[in-house]
Amino acid sequence: MHTHHRSWLILKHAYVRAAEIETLLDLYGTVDDIVRQPRSRLSESGLSAEKCDAIATPDEKAISTALDWLEDDRHHLIAWGQEAYPEMLSQIPGPPLALYVNGNVDALHMPALAVIGSRNPTQGGRRNAHGFSRHLAGQGFTIISGLAQGIDTAAHEGALDAGGKTIAFLGTGIDRVYPAANRQLAHAIAGDGALVSEYPLGAPPERWHFPERNRLISGISLGTLVVEAARRSGSLITARLAAEQGREVFALPGSIHNALARGCHELIRQGAKLVETAADILGELRPLAAHMREIADEVVDKSGVRETTSPEHDDDYQELRKALSHDPTSIDELKKQSGLTIDQLSSMLLILELHGEVESLSGGRYALTG
Amino acid sequence: MHTHHRSWLILKHAYVRAAEIETLLDLYGTVDDIVRQPRSRLSESGLSAEKCDAIATPDEKAISTALDWLEDDRHHLIAWGQEAYPEMLSQIPGPPLALYVNGNVDALHMPALAVIGSRNPTQGGRRNAHGFSRHLAGQGFTIISGLAQGIDTAAHEGALDAGGKTIAFLGTGIDRVYPAANRQLAHAIAGDGALVSEYPLGAPPERWHFPERNRLISGISLGTLVVEAARRSGSLITARLAAEQGREVFALPGSIHNALARGCHELIRQGAKLVETAADILGELRPLAAHMREIADEVVDKSGVRETTSPEHDDDYQELRKALSHDPTSIDELKKQSGLTIDQLSSMLLILELHGEVESLSGGRYALTG
Repeated sequence: MHTHHRSWLILKHAYVRAAEIETLLDLYGTVDDIVRQPRSRLSESGLSAEKCDAIATPDEKAISTALDWLEDDRHHLIAWGQEAYPEMLSQIPGPPLALYVNGNVDALHMPALAVIGSRNPTQGGRRNAHGFSRHLAGQGFTIISGLAQGIDTAAHEGALDAGGKTIAFLGTGIDRVYPAANRQLAHAIAGDGALVSEYPLGAPPERWHFPERNRLISGISLGTLVVEAARRSGSLITARLAAEQGREVFALPGSIHNALARGCHELIRQGAKLVETAADILGELRPLAAHMREIADEVVDKSGVRETTSPEHDDDYQELRKALSHDPTSIDELKKQSGLTIDQLSSMLLILELHGEVESLSGGRYALTG
Repeated sequence: MHTHHRSWLILKHAYVRAAEIETLLDLYGTVDDIVRQPRSRLSESGLSAEKCDAIATPDEKAISTALDWLEDDRHHLIAWGQEAYPEMLSQIPGPPLALYVNGNVDALHMPALAVIGSRNPTQGGRRNAHGFSRHLAGQGFTIISGLAQGIDTAAHEGALDAGGKTIAFLGTGIDRVYPAANRQLAHAIAGDGALVSEYPLGAPPERWHFPERNRLISGISLGTLVVEAARRSGSLITARLAAEQGREVFALPGSIHNALARGCHELIRQGAKLVETAADILGELRPLAAHMREIADEVVDKSGVRETTSPEHDDDYQELRKALSHDPTSIDELKKQSGLTIDQLSSMLLILELHGEVESLSGGRYALTG
């Protein structure tokens, strides 16, 4: 295994592409055989001189750093063609040759939804990202995002609050956290989910990493939800990649006076699905997820997407439901009747709203729908 | 002329449809000839017994009331086939046989946009209806609506504020105003625009009149803009009629937490054009309006849609433009720099925003776009 690791790391540091590895394997046998070839024989494969050089005289220091990092049980290198390589990523153009993973590798095989958007969202955008992620993670979807501030952070946190899985794809080496403010969040994500990077250990947050990284966020996901995004933003690039990869694109509409709704509206005009509630997403993704679970079950011995469509059933929710009616009721009145705090109520009402059970009306009032 | 009026009124009170009048004219000559036919000959036309009875023994009291009403120079009866009958309405299924008009008949021949929505909109919805109507009326479009409270009222008022034309289609007789609170608004509309009804004088606001009336609102308009509307609301009926009549349907998106954005979102999902700025509407309607103006020019000796695409050019706007930059600026700062009041600024910024010149950012800040 260690030998394999070393060989894959050599190939990865030589920037060999997944498309090229197939040719090399055909010619020489295993990855270990490839890296053992003399420089002269390697060049017969059609590989560029630069890559041949890098394989023949590998960067031993970088490889040894990576091998040291891999000593930890929670650290993994997942390479092209291995069973642990995510099926969803193997389908995209330009798949990574290998991924550094810190955390639970199984999380990469669950049906996933990417939740992305602005680094400077409105308070409402943040709440929506959190609420949708929390609800959908609770339904068994892994929430994928990019660990950035703003929407990304809210998405990861929402999934964690639901006790669900979430994965952050990094634009840095797997051993670095960017932005630094998210160090604690990164640690929590790696608990039952994962941090994933295709960059060498120690790689800084280079500007060009992020759009490149975005293809993995969209690619591993059945769909991408854009919560709030400006026109000409990175989120729209990710959404376009999702569409090109044949994935679903979802966008939340917003007020025409909210500049961060503009990107979402542009996507909707281009054919993205307009999303109002989590049910809008579940309706599209459940059939895809069911299919994917069949694939995932071969790899992971875990339950996938739960079939239940009803939201939380605990006592607090029952109290809240009793306090609600089809007539608009103020949150103060709900507080009085349910005995819950405003904070609890806000979060629970959003969950019910995302589920389509409740609608929020002007003046902070709420009513049962239907 | 008076004779014609009487004959048309008899036919109208007999509920003869526009489709039937063609047959009757072919058989008997003029409308005056039709109403002079003996009962026995009339029935040979295939007209129902009920309608034949109503023509042979007309409701003289109702007809005399209508003739009295028509004595006023500003009061008109426009009948099927007449030059003053709006071309746009002649194209729809179930066109009215005749229309009672109070005001400026020319207004019915200008390129028009319907602006409709909830009777209980949010403050933001009201502002949007007012702002879009004001801007588009200023560009030469007649703003069509239904004189209801809420969005309708804001739409009519916006057009009037721009010194533009607006038409209210009524669900009552032309001599009644519903709701009564809009009496003064109705008077202002009839100034340079028009009140229009197909119902007999004195007809109360029967519930079934309104969906029927809605086909005229959508039918006379090149497009219908829905500003805020609940699901399963009258506004969605009008939008559906617009689509069936081959007219454009526009909808303003909104927050997913705004129940009155739901209807608009439903329309967008069904193919309505998502609108963020007035330019989105102008882009679709200008070509249609130009074609329509050619038709209108044959009837009305008036200028139609102005070709200018730039918004207001007066000194106040120049001051505001100087105060704005591509960096976000607070409205307080704009007030300080421009010397304008917050009220003036709010209205002017909305106009510029609708025009796409300015975008509003979080925290009440504004920046030049592009």
